[in-house]
Amino acid sequence: MASDIEIARAAKMRPITEIGAKLDIPPEALESYGSTKAKVKSSFIAGLNGRPDGKLILVTAINPTSAGEGKTTTTVGLGDGLNRIGKRAAMCLREPSLGPCFGMKGGAAGGGHAQVVPMEDINLHFTGDFHAITSAHNLLSALIDNHIYWGNTLEIDVRRVTWRRVMDMNDRSLREIVSSLGGVANGFPREAGFDITVASEIMAILCLATDLADLQERLGNIIIGYRRDRSAITARDLEADGAMTVLLKEAMQPNLVQTLENNPAFIHGGPFANIAHGCNSVIATRTALKLADYVVTEAGFGADLGAEKFFDIKCRKAGLSPAAAVIVATIRALKMNGGVGKDELGEENVEALKKGCANLGRHIENVKQFGVPVVVAINHFVTDTDAEVEAIKAYAAEQGVEAVLCQHWAKGSEGTEELARKVVELVEHDSAQFAPLYEDDMPLFAKIQTVARRIYRADDVAADKSVRDQLHKWEADGFGHLPVCMAKTQYSFSTDPNLRGAPTGHMVPVREVRLSAGAGFIVVICGEIMTMPGLPKVPSANHIRLDADGQIEGLF
Amino acid sequence: MASDIEIARAAKMRPITEIGAKLDIPPEALESYGSTKAKVKSSFIAGLNGRPDGKLILVTAINPTSAGEGKTTTTVGLGDGLNRIGKRAAMCLREPSLGPCFGMKGGAAGGGHAQVVPMEDINLHFTGDFHAITSAHNLLSALIDNHIYWGNTLEIDVRRVTWRRVMDMNDRSLREIVSSLGGVANGFPREAGFDITVASEIMAILCLATDLADLQERLGNIIIGYRRDRSAITARDLEADGAMTVLLKEAMQPNLVQTLENNPAFIHGGPFANIAHGCNSVIATRTALKLADYVVTEAGFGADLGAEKFFDIKCRKAGLSPAAAVIVATIRALKMNGGVGKDELGEENVEALKKGCANLGRHIENVKQFGVPVVVAINHFVTDTDAEVEAIKAYAAEQGVEAVLCQHWAKGSEGTEELARKVVELVEHDSAQFAPLYEDDMPLFAKIQTVARRIYRADDVAADKSVRDQLHKWEADGFGHLPVCMAKTQYSFSTDPNLRGAPTGHMVPVREVRLSAGAGFIVVICGEIMTMPGLPKVPSANHIRLDADGQIEGLF
Repeated sequence: MASDIEIARAAKMRPITEIGAKLDIPPEALESYGSTKAKVKSSFIAGLNGRPDGKLILVTAINPTSAGEGKTTTTVGLGDGLNRIGKRAAMCLREPSLGPCFGMKGGAAGGGHAQVVPMEDINLHFTGDFHAITSAHNLLSALIDNHIYWGNTLEIDVRRVTWRRVMDMNDRSLREIVSSLGGVANGFPREAGFDITVASEIMAILCLATDLADLQERLGNIIIGYRRDRSAITARDLEADGAMTVLLKEAMQPNLVQTLENNPAFIHGGPFANIAHGCNSVIATRTALKLADYVVTEAGFGADLGAEKFFDIKCRKAGLSPAAAVIVATIRALKMNGGVGKDELGEENVEALKKGCANLGRHIENVKQFGVPVVVAINHFVTDTDAEVEAIKAYAAEQGVEAVLCQHWAKGSEGTEELARKVVELVEHDSAQFAPLYEDDMPLFAKIQTVARRIYRADDVAADKSVRDQLHKWEADGFGHLPVCMAKTQYSFSTDPNLRGAPTGHMVPVREVRLSAGAGFIVVICGEIMTMPGLPKVPSANHIRLDADGQIEGLF
Repeated sequence: MASDIEIARAAKMRPITEIGAKLDIPPEALESYGSTKAKVKSSFIAGLNGRPDGKLILVTAINPTSAGEGKTTTTVGLGDGLNRIGKRAAMCLREPSLGPCFGMKGGAAGGGHAQVVPMEDINLHFTGDFHAITSAHNLLSALIDNHIYWGNTLEIDVRRVTWRRVMDMNDRSLREIVSSLGGVANGFPREAGFDITVASEIMAILCLATDLADLQERLGNIIIGYRRDRSAITARDLEADGAMTVLLKEAMQPNLVQTLENNPAFIHGGPFANIAHGCNSVIATRTALKLADYVVTEAGFGADLGAEKFFDIKCRKAGLSPAAAVIVATIRALKMNGGVGKDELGEENVEALKKGCANLGRHIENVKQFGVPVVVAINHFVTDTDAEVEAIKAYAAEQGVEAVLCQHWAKGSEGTEELARKVVELVEHDSAQFAPLYEDDMPLFAKIQTVARRIYRADDVAADKSVRDQLHKWEADGFGHLPVCMAKTQYSFSTDPNLRGAPTGHMVPVREVRLSAGAGFIVVICGEIMTMPGLPKVPSANHIRLDADGQIEGLF
């Protein structure tokens, strides 16, 4: 069987201007990066205002295994399927992070016959967006220490600088450092550290900003740290917002590429799905909606995290109204949710599958709570048996939704034609009545409780007084209207990754809350959250190289 | 008078394919980055082998003031001038560093009517080359600490890790850090630090490598640190060379842009001119020589550093044979070399000028030592008087060379037509007999002495026994054939920046020597060398922003 990279290399890519033409983007509106990648120019995007929007379809998933359930692959497959049945459809995906490529083998541009190309470029430097974010982030960091060095007129408390540095690399040794050592000329020593670029608040900001003016406003709102009296200091106070915006000018323009079937895909932005909202950029989604009749997009992790944030943060803030949602499930992951161990997932086990379906059922209920109609996509694996597939279909039918077997990995759009037809049916039935889970004016702690109870089905939220006091202080400071951005494990509805299926009776302990004033949400940390990964003992970097033909090997 | 940025914005840029066509580069050999920037594809470059070379002209300078004497501007002006008189000429320039843009106001893409465009792009992210170098450098850094973390089978002495990290930012607080703090999960705490990206050995390697295979070989040769027994550990030992090469695959392709007069300019690579050799890439220069009849290029700082390294490192290693050299002088800098204070440079002072001409005279003699014929370009300033200009011309004539007044800043190629004709005359006279200053097999310390005595005109070199022992050890280890890369102040022939003119009787103290085994030279540190700049009290970042029309203001 051909590998992802072999399939990708065999692809017959069309010039990107031809892909743009499918959406009536004129060639002069594209800033090309080679012949198969382009940015859509801001000036063209600004001219789309007032056009009607296409229909927005979210692809989300059940609680995944560590391999993921194939959201990106299904997003690509569904987009290709919609094009196959004659719809004008585009996809909106997240950009992969460079750093992890050198740790574990594997890219993030779909798989099998449902990929976006050129996959090597997309997985490596692409159009430089993440490098621009890294630069803008670290410029602010440099300006903070420079301000302190030259007299600190803003009275930044060096112990309370919350703005760290970033690098698009898995490098555990940078998590905690002491900087400015070496004497007077190097500044005032202080504790500092690095996150990976995708965890930068600037990544979240870029993905939520509607245009360059909004971007600059949000960058200015970033809180970099506090004074001894705990009053906040912003990037605007440091006069950093203008230069950061300049660094991000090109990065704000969405990237256009194509699927293996030459259909248009926007790939733009890629914030973490725990400490941030985990969706591609608002500007890409909005642009796609102006240009296509159907826009298929994905959200990070399972629906408890990804879909909830997509609805409560991205759609709320951007005024988007999704018409339907696809919940991706695999038989393997459902069996795992039903208690089967990792090594026995390849064997038929209908009973365990039925038990694990409770996980799927709850995600279906949850998405429906937002007023969005649902279809289930069974992402087919070769080990799946007919009896297992039928069991899921029967379970879904009991929940009042359809489950469709999808074989896009093996067959491309031929394998998603049925899913595409079901999605069109749902959309044309026009039953969506989207509303976020909670109102803006609900107190912050009540918002956390609402998500915990209605989505995670927890009994309650546990939080120290210090956490509650912090939330009250932010409410007093005018941040009470912000949505909450929950950071917890992706493997369970609860905060315990081993609690599979559809657990009840659990508590959600809030360890810490953080204000992302630029992005515009309150991060609620429930459990260990890693914002700078490490490399494994044998990193894939050891085996990545150019082969004799100049092709990259070992990356995927 | 119009500012640089106003002139640049008023430029009528031609599509980059049209610029390529001037050098018979077919459109399919260009990887475009928008309509006015492109990379020349490696596959096309590989096909140029065997073609005859054009003539290579070096633009160098006297010892400069802190404002620089206009080497880049003169390189562009001369290239335009050669095109104006009907020659097929291209320019080869260095890429500017992003970090310093946010410190002091000012770009590095020429000035006035002698600029390369699009200047904002060139000064900011450009085609991402420096970001790729940053990534490749920091990947190696991460792999070092990761190796130590997972058991350190190579027995790296954590006190003897010489490979630092880099960032393309002026950030003094990262010069000296302690990393891996925070407990077991974050590794073994050790002293570490960051340089600015242009100081990375990878920058020097990229600029000296002849193709991707040579690049990988050199990356593998990088010494990252030592064991307790002082034996060296390389990037190849860490299996990092393949992945680093993959990250640099696109960055190895030279960038093509245009001058304000729509002539072709290659801008590729930009190593420091102190701890590295300060020239654009060998691959860009070689490519340009295959495509143009005249190739004008620049080297960093004054001729004592820049030209010497251009000849002894770049030309020696790449087998290049320059046909002529232009020494740029300004009347202001010559007066400063003649003892005039900064505030009186605007007033006519022929006596001081004549005294300062000794500096010019020595650079002329030095360049001639390499067998390269010389012409002097007087880079005109509005405050220059006719008497001053005549004094330089008379002085140059005494040295047997011509000095030509150049007004490219104000007039573009009209202001360099005479210079272009003189250069053609020199080249057609065919008197160049280039040879490096010393042979490969001269002992390392003797190489240092040769440069110090014959170029700097020092009495001798002072070095501790530890330095001499180190040089002997490298000779024993097989590095004795490498050239030396001198790192000293750019403001004087001596190591004292205040010793202007043409000092004699001084000593060159060697503080430290470093082996750049990948780049292939021994760095000889004579004085304070800063590899991570800081930001000033009021950084230009504070005033950089987009104006109401979306144009960048405050950057230039």
